[in-house]
Amino acid sequence: MFKAKITVTLRKSILDPQGKAVEHSLKSLGYDRIKDTRIGKYIELIIDSDSKEDAFVTAEEACKKVLANPVMEDYSFEIIEEGKD
Amino acid sequence: MFKAKITVTLRKSILDPQGKAVEHSLKSLGYDRIKDTRIGKYIELIIDSDSKEDAFVTAEEACKKVLANPVMEDYSFEIIEEGKD
Repeated sequence: MFKAKITVTLRKSILDPQGKAVEHSLKSLGYDRIKDTRIGKYIELIIDSDSKEDAFVTAEEACKKVLANPVMEDYSFEIIEEGKD
Repeated sequence: MFKAKITVTLRKSILDPQGKAVEHSLKSLGYDRIKDTRIGKYIELIIDSDSKEDAFVTAEEACKKVLANPVMEDYSFEIIEEGKD
């Protein structure tokens, strides 16, 4: 069993209104050293697989087909053996 | 400048309907080796700070006060020097 830890974020060139809202909240609480905030999705998949390479392929396909919108979003992930984080 | 990479996830004991919906989508596409899916938030903060320790304290406070709901959610983060990921 492997765990894929996936982050999906809006591309840098795309405006992130949710991030701006959070940044504004933090600044109004006095955290004015926070210069930029971007918000994305975090997804954990538990993949029943014998090899890490195989889990990698499954996670990559899941990102491309379902989890990320390739026009607006970037994704990255790491695969770890389940129970080892 | 430091970057805080924060993940906020629902606690294990709390039902994650969004995760279940994604899991169902993946299974209906034939990925039946995906056994569990949990969805959370991913937040990047750029913190203008001289020391990593100081950036750590700022990120910790931001998580506690704004980004995570301590009743339902867990958070974790790492601090990296900006431009080094």
